[in-house]
Amino acid sequence: MSRTSPSRAGVETAARRIQAEVLKTPLLPVEIGGTWSWIKAECLQRGGSFKLRGAANRLLQLTDEERHRGVVAFSSGNHALGVALTARKLGVSATIVMPSDAPAVKREATEAAGARIVSFDRLTESREEIGARLAAESGATLVPSFDDTDIIEGQGSVGIEIAEQLGASPDKVVIPCGGGGLSSGIALALPDAEIVIVEPAGWDDMTRSLEGGEIVPVADDAPPTRCDALQTKLVSPLTFAALRDAGAKGVSVTEEEIAAAMAFAARQLRIVAEPGGSVALAAALSGKAGSLTERSVIVVSGGNVDPLLYSEILGAQAAEAARYA
Amino acid sequence: MSRTSPSRAGVETAARRIQAEVLKTPLLPVEIGGTWSWIKAECLQRGGSFKLRGAANRLLQLTDEERHRGVVAFSSGNHALGVALTARKLGVSATIVMPSDAPAVKREATEAAGARIVSFDRLTESREEIGARLAAESGATLVPSFDDTDIIEGQGSVGIEIAEQLGASPDKVVIPCGGGGLSSGIALALPDAEIVIVEPAGWDDMTRSLEGGEIVPVADDAPPTRCDALQTKLVSPLTFAALRDAGAKGVSVTEEEIAAAMAFAARQLRIVAEPGGSVALAAALSGKAGSLTERSVIVVSGGNVDPLLYSEILGAQAAEAARYA
Repeated sequence: MSRTSPSRAGVETAARRIQAEVLKTPLLPVEIGGTWSWIKAECLQRGGSFKLRGAANRLLQLTDEERHRGVVAFSSGNHALGVALTARKLGVSATIVMPSDAPAVKREATEAAGARIVSFDRLTESREEIGARLAAESGATLVPSFDDTDIIEGQGSVGIEIAEQLGASPDKVVIPCGGGGLSSGIALALPDAEIVIVEPAGWDDMTRSLEGGEIVPVADDAPPTRCDALQTKLVSPLTFAALRDAGAKGVSVTEEEIAAAMAFAARQLRIVAEPGGSVALAAALSGKAGSLTERSVIVVSGGNVDPLLYSEILGAQAAEAARYA
Repeated sequence: MSRTSPSRAGVETAARRIQAEVLKTPLLPVEIGGTWSWIKAECLQRGGSFKLRGAANRLLQLTDEERHRGVVAFSSGNHALGVALTARKLGVSATIVMPSDAPAVKREATEAAGARIVSFDRLTESREEIGARLAAESGATLVPSFDDTDIIEGQGSVGIEIAEQLGASPDKVVIPCGGGGLSSGIALALPDAEIVIVEPAGWDDMTRSLEGGEIVPVADDAPPTRCDALQTKLVSPLTFAALRDAGAKGVSVTEEEIAAAMAFAARQLRIVAEPGGSVALAAALSGKAGSLTERSVIVVSGGNVDPLLYSEILGAQAAEAARYA
């Protein structure tokens, strides 16, 4: 964990630092319930998610010595890919600790980016312990996926871009939340915006933590979810504090609402959104995110979904739409 | 048909005229055969295709009197949607003559944009005649889909944006071609670029016209194609002349290559590309578009594909990839 808490100034510095490494992803207009709002299409980022931002912000600050010893990260996929792509660009070796049930699309892309992958069993092993052991053995730098000031500030660059692209602070930003790196970074970047974080049903630990005023973990009997990117069992004091201080509120969405949002994204926006990347859109479409305005922004945070699963979800949604047509 | 031939100056004027109506669609990096080139993701345009550009350029030049009498267009879908969206924004009534087998996704979006739809049978009726008759009856202005200087110059704004975004003229631009409005407009906008136009196999009339030096129609026994957007039986003297003068060359791609390109677009770029919008990417992936550089641009021109067809194509491609994995 970094020494200092993440801050707005840190987010602004990060946005400048990583500018050459990231795409400025588009704001796409979207009509929901007769109101035109905006989608921040971070699924179009290099590597298919916002995770490149935090990884770039962290890796660009490594010393020459640290670059030489390489980096280690643990991730179900999008953070892995962000670290691997940045490491390759900087000539740094990367080892990624990945659950054995990670989506093939994420594993393959991470391998293609030149990273070494170490698998672990999500149910019986601790990725944190494996990552820490590997880092200790090799002297490599551990790059956390969200519990880190540099990572949070890097993800927050999404918020800086949103304000630039809108020409003003948004009224509201609706954001997918796993560990809270993206949402806390955006909350820091946009102090005048209402922040709504969205989690899959049963994985709404950040929502419950914000409601109760202290961090609570995901229940041991949390239901299965297709949102591999949001299966974080415990949020971080850094991300929790930033969201709490911003007055953020949380909502959760069902797997069916997520599937409908993925189909909407394909048909109305022509973007591929993965399950975890679609939860904020699902909350907006279902009304759970509250009223929207022409200065509301919904973040679609990632688009790495296994092709077969994706085609099945779209096919089932199309069949259902035809039944009710 | 307009009075003058389309020109580079006209494209530049059009790009300025329509700036507030269109999105500046992103250039997305793409790795093909080890080289990083660029995708111009025009499927992310309002209405899901570049067609908004030409429609906006034409409709913004109507007199008050003409706006009052409304507009008529014939289109399989994307041009319909471009005209309908622009007409709604300008408070102009729009009637669209659409083939009865047009994709439902395009028909429904056109209706949702407030246009009146008149169906015709692609095999037995002439959409040009129906459109001309409707225009004559109502005094409405006919908005052609490609055989028109204003339309071509509007579509050419894609080329102006590409040069701005690259910071230089591209080496090569690979472009889907139906009637040739988009490709001829881009050729005018980018006189220093090599222009490659791409058509579906059997619908390669522009390719054969360019090779032979005079316009030839599509053969009567042209095979079925999923590229509804590119089923143009005869190109226009305006588009042909612009492409011929630019030294453009044409290639054609198979339905299987198109399906593979759609799957690649979803997985590697996280964009939804319709069959006709994917032909240039198919030519790039198959090597038919020739060598690519870091200043080559491949245009993905549209993303309006019926959800069930889309899921079937992605599912079949994923199953095939699994067989060879």
